Amino acid sequence: MVKIAIDVMGGDYGVAPIIEGFIDAYEQRADEFEPVFVGDEDLIKSHLPSKYAKFRIVHTKEFIAMDSSATDALKKKESSIYKAIALHKENKDGNREVDGVISAGHSGATMSLATLRIGRIKGVKRPALVSLFPSTKEGATTLVLDLGANVDCKSEHLYQFAFFGKAYAQDVLKIKDIKVGLLSNGEEDSKGNELSKEAFGLLKNEDFFIGNVEGGDIYNGSVDVIVCDGFTGNLVLKASEGAAKAIGIILKREIYRNGLFAKIGALLMKPALNTLKKTVDYAERGGAPLLGINGCVIISHGKSNANAIKNAIFQAVDFASSNTNNDILEGLGKK
Amino acid sequence: MVKIAIDVMGGDYGVAPIIEGFIDAYEQRADEFEPVFVGDEDLIKSHLPSKYAKFRIVHTKEFIAMDSSATDALKKKESSIYKAIALHKENKDGNREVDGVISAGHSGATMSLATLRIGRIKGVKRPALVSLFPSTKEGATTLVLDLGANVDCKSEHLYQFAFFGKAYAQDVLKIKDIKVGLLSNGEEDSKGNELSKEAFGLLKNEDFFIGNVEGGDIYNGSVDVIVCDGFTGNLVLKASEGAAKAIGIILKREIYRNGLFAKIGALLMKPALNTLKKTVDYAERGGAPLLGINGCVIISHGKSNANAIKNAIFQAVDFASSNTNNDILEGLGKK
Repeated sequence: MVKIAIDVMGGDYGVAPIIEGFIDAYEQRADEFEPVFVGDEDLIKSHLPSKYAKFRIVHTKEFIAMDSSATDALKKKESSIYKAIALHKENKDGNREVDGVISAGHSGATMSLATLRIGRIKGVKRPALVSLFPSTKEGATTLVLDLGANVDCKSEHLYQFAFFGKAYAQDVLKIKDIKVGLLSNGEEDSKGNELSKEAFGLLKNEDFFIGNVEGGDIYNGSVDVIVCDGFTGNLVLKASEGAAKAIGIILKREIYRNGLFAKIGALLMKPALNTLKKTVDYAERGGAPLLGINGCVIISHGKSNANAIKNAIFQAVDFASSNTNNDILEGLGKK
Repeated sequence: MVKIAIDVMGGDYGVAPIIEGFIDAYEQRADEFEPVFVGDEDLIKSHLPSKYAKFRIVHTKEFIAMDSSATDALKKKESSIYKAIALHKENKDGNREVDGVISAGHSGATMSLATLRIGRIKGVKRPALVSLFPSTKEGATTLVLDLGANVDCKSEHLYQFAFFGKAYAQDVLKIKDIKVGLLSNGEEDSKGNELSKEAFGLLKNEDFFIGNVEGGDIYNGSVDVIVCDGFTGNLVLKASEGAAKAIGIILKREIYRNGLFAKIGALLMKPALNTLKKTVDYAERGGAPLLGINGCVIISHGKSNANAIKNAIFQAVDFASSNTNNDILEGLGKK
């Protein structure tokens, strides 16, 4: 049984989808976790059925607005994310009030607070944000990191990210024989920019390293973990989402244009289209774990719906119950 | 009437789709161009209907194999791409035997040869490869450059790319009031990595510059030209293609699984699906123009089918007949 702090403030759609996501998560896995809500007590109580009234609420009305800078956030000690992170920080006896945190608020603030207040795993230079991508290989997930925690990276950061991703894939996602690739503009060893070529040199003797992989490999199940700098990772994620969205928009427009037959066709295909939608929907995979810190923090999209929050809570539960951070420590410790 | 050298060698599928693409192009726009074929004369003649026997063939059996290095290519003077580029190089009187070149062969070799043998436009530091992306805005195309000619860029390169893209969009694609954006990990002015922030500083006073754009903006018609380094551009292209391909694979699998109704549905939706396929198919847009050189070279995908070759020829015809290179010269000259 782990305790998870749920920051209910700062999401784009308010408290409702976050509480709803908790309820869905709790109905499925009540014996595995206990929530600690952080946020406006009245708001939380108004959304929470009375049978959940037994759970602790850490009250605050403040949160970090989306247009604040991450550095401002560090000073705002009454904000929900500050308080949630504080619950997760080890006290002087090495204990924590909660085992993990999820937040759909200001992601820069959450990353800064998590890194500075909870601290990094020994030996870690920079934490990294992981995104989970769908794959044409059924049930498979591709981890890509960094997704934006570090827009400018050095090769030793990319090198460490490989160990973060491997540990998470292995311990939380239970993937066996992890294959780690380096994102590059071609598969040949000679491909890459200065940064990726340097990182290739650092990674090439690791047994889990399969070499350079291309943008398309994110989706074909050929690799479990893909390492890149946070600028590239963010762009690859956003461009892919944009392409998928564009396909949806164009298809809808053409169905509409092609009249009744196309509409009937779309109706008949609905189960197939729904499965597709579900497969590509990030909400099915939850949030983005921040790896490399001495803790368990899941950063959810500001636009998370209840399903995304439910899955982010599951991620936090699985991560907090896992040996990931020890394995990162050990992986890096050998170097 | 312009003359276009067509390198028929080095494509992944041999001579056939290239000749076929020429025939399709010529049937549509015979009064606008004349081909000069470069490659194995016997092979060309065996694929070319006799009514096209009047056109010049520059014979060679050699080409640059895909696994050669681009530097090797510079020495191989009998290769088809070397000869095609030579036809396009100005002689001492300032004349050229052809006005443009298209090739589906070794792209690195083509870029190197074009840059070194034809030379750059005065003031240009680095040529850039442009890719044309589809958009949800009908008929609209988004230009992204660089797509891989320069994996490591400096901010002044990105700055120049903006002028290349603007000139091509305006003079070849006939887009009005060109909007140029800088690819970044967020729209705010403060977003970006070191490189893009520096480039932002150089671009911010240009009237065509609309600021930072995100990966998703490639597909939504909000911007005409997007500038980035070649490493990022390549990854964004490949990741988007990978996402689109994955969607197709998953959808097909689910249609198959959902039995007869889904299959009938797919059949009824076929016209809509075909339009979608056509919209996202790169073959509809042709090849990638190499901008910044003192000439007109279109680099086609090695896997180009006849349709892609046809459209690449149209690109070469339109580019060669346009004022693009003068406008690049003037744009940069003002600085």
